[in-house]
Amino acid sequence: MSEAAQTLEGWYALHDFRTIDWQAWKAASEEERTQATDELHVYLKLWDHVNEMKQGSTAVYTIIGQKADLVFMHLRETLEELNALENAFNKTSFAKFTKPTYSYVSIVELSNYMGQPGVDPLQVPEVVARLKPTLPKANHICFYPMNKRREGNDNWYMLSMDDRKAMMRSHGLIGRQYAGKVKQIITGSVGFDNWEWGVTLFADDALQFKKLVYEMRFDEVSARFGEFGEFYVGNLLTEAKLSELLSV
Amino acid sequence: MSEAAQTLEGWYALHDFRTIDWQAWKAASEEERTQATDELHVYLKLWDHVNEMKQGSTAVYTIIGQKADLVFMHLRETLEELNALENAFNKTSFAKFTKPTYSYVSIVELSNYMGQPGVDPLQVPEVVARLKPTLPKANHICFYPMNKRREGNDNWYMLSMDDRKAMMRSHGLIGRQYAGKVKQIITGSVGFDNWEWGVTLFADDALQFKKLVYEMRFDEVSARFGEFGEFYVGNLLTEAKLSELLSV
Amino acid sequence: MSEAAQTLEGWYALHDFRTIDWQAWKAASEEERTQATDELHVYLKLWDHVNEMKQGSTAVYTIIGQKADLVFMHLRETLEELNALENAFNKTSFAKFTKPTYSYVSIVELSNYMGQPGVDPLQVPEVVARLKPTLPKANHICFYPMNKRREGNDNWYMLSMDDRKAMMRSHGLIGRQYAGKVKQIITGSVGFDNWEWGVTLFADDALQFKKLVYEMRFDEVSARFGEFGEFYVGNLLTEAKLSELLSV
Amino acid sequence: MSEAAQTLEGWYALHDFRTIDWQAWKAASEEERTQATDELHVYLKLWDHVNEMKQGSTAVYTIIGQKADLVFMHLRETLEELNALENAFNKTSFAKFTKPTYSYVSIVELSNYMGQPGVDPLQVPEVVARLKPTLPKANHICFYPMNKRREGNDNWYMLSMDDRKAMMRSHGLIGRQYAGKVKQIITGSVGFDNWEWGVTLFADDALQFKKLVYEMRFDEVSARFGEFGEFYVGNLLTEAKLSELLSV
Amino acid sequence: MSEAAQTLEGWYALHDFRTIDWQAWKAASEEERTQATDELHVYLKLWDHVNEMKQGSTAVYTIIGQKADLVFMHLRETLEELNALENAFNKTSFAKFTKPTYSYVSIVELSNYMGQPGVDPLQVPEVVARLKPTLPKANHICFYPMNKRREGNDNWYMLSMDDRKAMMRSHGLIGRQYAGKVKQIITGSVGFDNWEWGVTLFADDALQFKKLVYEMRFDEVSARFGEFGEFYVGNLLTEAKLSELLSV
Repeated sequence: MSEAAQTLEGWYALHDFRTIDWQAWKAASEEERTQATDELHVYLKLWDHVNEMKQGSTAVYTIIGQKADLVFMHLRETLEELNALENAFNKTSFAKFTKPTYSYVSIVELSNYMGQPGVDPLQVPEVVARLKPTLPKANHICFYPMNKRREGNDNWYMLSMDDRKAMMRSHGLIGRQYAGKVKQIITGSVGFDNWEWGVTLFADDALQFKKLVYEMRFDEVSARFGEFGEFYVGNLLTEAKLSELLSV
Repeated sequence: MSEAAQTLEGWYALHDFRTIDWQAWKAASEEERTQATDELHVYLKLWDHVNEMKQGSTAVYTIIGQKADLVFMHLRETLEELNALENAFNKTSFAKFTKPTYSYVSIVELSNYMGQPGVDPLQVPEVVARLKPTLPKANHICFYPMNKRREGNDNWYMLSMDDRKAMMRSHGLIGRQYAGKVKQIITGSVGFDNWEWGVTLFADDALQFKKLVYEMRFDEVSARFGEFGEFYVGNLLTEAKLSELLSV
Repeated sequence: MSEAAQTLEGWYALHDFRTIDWQAWKAASEEERTQATDELHVYLKLWDHVNEMKQGSTAVYTIIGQKADLVFMHLRETLEELNALENAFNKTSFAKFTKPTYSYVSIVELSNYMGQPGVDPLQVPEVVARLKPTLPKANHICFYPMNKRREGNDNWYMLSMDDRKAMMRSHGLIGRQYAGKVKQIITGSVGFDNWEWGVTLFADDALQFKKLVYEMRFDEVSARFGEFGEFYVGNLLTEAKLSELLSV
Repeated sequence: MSEAAQTLEGWYALHDFRTIDWQAWKAASEEERTQATDELHVYLKLWDHVNEMKQGSTAVYTIIGQKADLVFMHLRETLEELNALENAFNKTSFAKFTKPTYSYVSIVELSNYMGQPGVDPLQVPEVVARLKPTLPKANHICFYPMNKRREGNDNWYMLSMDDRKAMMRSHGLIGRQYAGKVKQIITGSVGFDNWEWGVTLFADDALQFKKLVYEMRFDEVSARFGEFGEFYVGNLLTEAKLSELLSV
Repeated sequence: MSEAAQTLEGWYALHDFRTIDWQAWKAASEEERTQATDELHVYLKLWDHVNEMKQGSTAVYTIIGQKADLVFMHLRETLEELNALENAFNKTSFAKFTKPTYSYVSIVELSNYMGQPGVDPLQVPEVVARLKPTLPKANHICFYPMNKRREGNDNWYMLSMDDRKAMMRSHGLIGRQYAGKVKQIITGSVGFDNWEWGVTLFADDALQFKKLVYEMRFDEVSARFGEFGEFYVGNLLTEAKLSELLSV
């Protein structure tokens, strides 16, 4: 039996992807649309407040292509809060004009592969900040779920801790080259959703997503062991963009 | 030919996942919603009674994310009872506001890998209690179906009984470290549904699901032989939570 | 090139799985439901008559879980009869309250792996009876489609006839242990549907499905070469059960 | 780099599978049904005319099981004709009562594995006739798409031309044993649709489809290299059968 | 760790596949259809203008078969423009008569495998033109997404740069034989969509798509490392064809 890596967990995460039912939105009366937009704004402000109080964080982006029109990425202290939040949203008059397309349940995770011996990571302020992060307002978001492969000779979970550590270190070095360009939030989902991890990237220049993920793909840990789900890419939904999006 | 493990079976299980049709629920009249809620309560009480009479057990949880809003996990003596139960529920006015999203048919199973020679397991009260268990009211539920892999050199069913026994023992030791934190119910579904087993976990702290499943993944029996389906995670649906969920 | 096994074929088979549209059923008027039920009974009687005349056989079971509510398993002399039968059923007022969920087209098949040299199997009355069987009224049904694997070193179709014969003999011995408990009907579907075979099992005790399929899984022919589709398990739909099912 | 086989191409093919919306058909007025049937007949006659003029060929069969109710297999000189044909059909009042379930775009193909050196195949009348064939009115049709596998040691496209030739010759010999029983039309779909080839078989005795495909499966080219999609099997839709099908 | 190939990126791409809702189109009033067609023309002209101003390029083709009726392939400078464009289109009265069926997000990419040392590719006018291309008005389009395989011994990302270079050179030579017959636009989608690349081909003779893709399949880079998604093939939607398509 191989030794499991130690992990640290922070806030629970719910990525909630939705598409807009344009036919219904256009068919609605001006009054219905105003009410729906107003209710959406109530929630957007509420989420801003949660963010300011450091009780969680929510990011809202539009998604390019037909997979979804919007993603709400929520970080909260408990699964109960996430559940209450999605139920409350589902009851809004805005939700009526959206259809769920995909969701992902996970928890912010830091792996201890890079941990320094003798240091309690929860005493390191930077670590704590990363476990309960304020989501950035970057121009772009990228989300994808992933597994570590367990096939024949490419079985991550049968490798020794040392081999995994060495590979993760190399992997981390690539990520570090993108510091300042791409912010990465890893969320663990073993036991919570269909893949083992969710990866959420934020960048002002979307091309950096491609550069980073492509470069990593040549790294052994991705080349031999990475299995990837669907990729979503989106644009920050500012107040102005929201008005534009919903005006018909 | 490899020797099949002996198994003991108890109650049949039906996991019934459903999503709420929020549009229909909001569009319904106050009277319709009251009737639907009342009918749901009739069934919840009936299931409580079944539980008290030890004629079966039912657990009701909400599910986080878009895969489902609710899961009803039913244990009953026969497939006829489970079938009657789902048909009765489908005819309620509450069911009209839900849509089926996933279900799983299985039977509570104890494998005899750990059995002691010379002991009839059905004479051990603890064994009997585990075959016909009262489902706990833990804060959280986790469900996933799984197979033992049969691919190339990783073929569980071609291993000797001794090899399988040794691996299952190691696997069981991990589980035992979570005693008091995670309650695990294994249900067998060979011949009944698409995977070989269903795993249902209960815990007051949902993070323990992740810790347990992740640690087990490094164990050879999971690392080399585990194949997993969709994961569902949920919160206990108490009386108070139910009122909150259904109030619009 | 490996030698193909000889096969004997009997009646064509159509497994027709359907779910009941409970909302429509409940919304229908008493009169509509009576008409629909009456039309269903006309067909049930017609199929009974076909069965008595030995011109075919039809079994009707309910299915547990959300995959389907009902399965009609029809055996007939020709594909034309099966096609006419499904079209006629689709035009009934009962069909309006059901939705198709899965179907399977195949033909009753006996493989000659066990054949005795010098004996014309079609002169053996028991063989002929098995090719055009009267479906039993057992308490339970189990259906699943399957393939023989063709992957790397586990390629059934590249084995010698002798190897295949030896493995099928061992496989058959397990089946024979369940004689009297489980009745098995194998239907071939190469060229007709997506898998190579359909397996339909009948038993009074559903647990025997699990015991049989699980024990066989340790047999090399299943362990190395069996690939399985979706499993369906159901209960006999008696006249009394049908009334109960459709009463709202 | 391995040498690609030379291929000859004839007419483009569109297999258009559709299911009948029985609820809508039954709910329609007698007048609507008459108009729809009349429009369908206009197209059936038009297609007969195309066939007589040797400008293409169309076959119409019913499909057994829930995958589809009908298949229209069209052969035409250009993709523009096929596209115009499907658009025209979609605008008929009959199409309103059908739902698309599957389609396949390909082109009649003869592979040159069997070609004789020094002979220009396009000068052989039989070859030309096979590239632009008149579809037969056999009792039954069978359709499935397929690939040649490219996995590990079973990579068709890495084999030498000689190895491929030898295997295709053996394959062809099996097909020849079914001459007079099964007519086979191979259509290539590399670059046109999701699989590399479509196989359409015609026979008066449907059992011959099973015999042929099963026997071929033991041939190395299928056993090691064949990957198969969904199988469809159907009955010739004669004028009389059409009336029966559509009468309610 | 293997060295990643350098890539150059140009315009972002959105392939937007849609099917026409023929029932709704036929049920619409003449006035509604005229308005919808007029709005579509406004956008077609707008896109022509963008093309003339070299601020992007849009191609419009019909698709053969049931996968889609239309594809809009848009190239623009930013993801924001693509997102605005799809939202604007979704709000037109024409969009109401279409349903999204598939989309693909990527960016025009030139790989540097063929780059000459000491030459800055962005100083080569032909390179710049290929990064921000004007889409041709060829008779036919072909689109498919693809990955480079990472399985066992066939792991592209574990090969040395030299091995990859040699294989890509051979691959490029095949492509060059089709110069003048097939125009190829490669778009990278790592980090943007579910596959690593999108391939869009344009040709006046659709058969050349098949010839090219089939010949390449025997090349090691495709034979061992190519994984392909769904293939779409279509016809240029000229003004005249559009009128024909929409007239009912």
